[in-house]
Amino acid sequence: MKGYLWVVGTGPGDPEHLTLRARRVLEEAEAVVGYETYLRFLRPLLEGKEVRAGRMREEMRRAGEALELARGGKKVALVSGGDAGVYGMAGPLLELRGEGADDVEVEVVPGVTALSAAAALLGAPLMHDFAAVSLSDLLTPWEEIAERLEATARADFVIGLYNPASRRRSWQLPRAASIIGRYRSPHTPVGVVRNACRPGQEVKIIPLKDLAALSLDMNSMAIVGNSRTYVCGGRMVTPRGYGSQPGFPVR
Amino acid sequence: MKGYLWVVGTGPGDPEHLTLRARRVLEEAEAVVGYETYLRFLRPLLEGKEVRAGRMREEMRRAGEALELARGGKKVALVSGGDAGVYGMAGPLLELRGEGADDVEVEVVPGVTALSAAAALLGAPLMHDFAAVSLSDLLTPWEEIAERLEATARADFVIGLYNPASRRRSWQLPRAASIIGRYRSPHTPVGVVRNACRPGQEVKIIPLKDLAALSLDMNSMAIVGNSRTYVCGGRMVTPRGYGSQPGFPVR
Repeated sequence: MKGYLWVVGTGPGDPEHLTLRARRVLEEAEAVVGYETYLRFLRPLLEGKEVRAGRMREEMRRAGEALELARGGKKVALVSGGDAGVYGMAGPLLELRGEGADDVEVEVVPGVTALSAAAALLGAPLMHDFAAVSLSDLLTPWEEIAERLEATARADFVIGLYNPASRRRSWQLPRAASIIGRYRSPHTPVGVVRNACRPGQEVKIIPLKDLAALSLDMNSMAIVGNSRTYVCGGRMVTPRGYGSQPGFPVR
Repeated sequence: MKGYLWVVGTGPGDPEHLTLRARRVLEEAEAVVGYETYLRFLRPLLEGKEVRAGRMREEMRRAGEALELARGGKKVALVSGGDAGVYGMAGPLLELRGEGADDVEVEVVPGVTALSAAAALLGAPLMHDFAAVSLSDLLTPWEEIAERLEATARADFVIGLYNPASRRRSWQLPRAASIIGRYRSPHTPVGVVRNACRPGQEVKIIPLKDLAALSLDMNSMAIVGNSRTYVCGGRMVTPRGYGSQPGFPVR
């Protein structure tokens, strides 16, 4: 008997932003494995299921547990925050399954990313080319992160900053703000969202020069506008191209 | 009376990938405005509603129509493909509404992006920093697109290529492949997805050296791996950091 494993994102938080497919998969699953914080959002959907809640920094252990349950014949959902395919559990799971592991069928179910959720709350900052950069240097040397920030700032990308800070990482955000500030006006709009689509949601738009002093955490995301991003009717908007002017055809 | 307007993405295609919130909004809307191709996916949800289907390249006209309906007192959904906040209708709508347009309340409903959908079908290519670059030079000069490709290729981003080609744009994809090829091995895995989550879906993983010769269209997306992306059990996987090794804790 072949095991079945779905890797599924919970979206930004509120189960309203789950896709129908994600919901169906969670209903069909016999066992659900995930980081405890994300499972909390799903509680009403988990009744009667085998639930394995894990802690931060144990991604590989959770992936292993999910694989083991699936190999034992259970239908398993491995849960990730946001989209499981963006800095999520899909990678660790597929790496651990490895080559030729034909005994477990894996389906990655796409979801709403933290970046999309933050962008929607801010307005429309992602109308043109954008980059996602994680400021976490636990797995990636800071030099590489700095190089990526510099490259995307210089080439005028809208930049989504994942994992901007945590209790033990506080110098990365001011450093990132300073790198980006070399290429962008201090008045560039930056959208900051905390607890997107969750209790305690905060949304604000600040100038780039105020980003360094901000106190953020792992539930936050910052989106730095490109050179043309502006604030319009209280929302952050990036025009779609040079031809874009309010009231005129954009294409 | 204040008008109400939702900007909502249909996700990649199959309404299974709509969020619950998006579905609810479409149910509640009295009028639905959108590009005809995307409305087709939603047909079962549109019965009994005023539907205004528009053609390509008329984004501003559609945004204007939606605003007008909302100002007339209707609850309106303005529909976009994928996530309305990523190269979608959220921007044109907010730009057209302009400053001080307090007569229409706008809510952007986040959705599953074309990039997330393609990534899920391919495996887990977006486990590390990534950039989205549109190859359409209708609104953006090619020099700027080329510069962005070069910057992200050099800084080892995973690169999602939106709008890789169309009937009238065929030289951009080979040009992009050649720019990226200056910084990446010809064997770098590239995931190519056509008609994600729709009839006629095609998914393949090819080496970068074969990208230039590919015949793609506006329903396609290509994801170019970074220097560490590999194929594992038939899926495209980008490790999450230097420490990542199958079977070992990644954080």
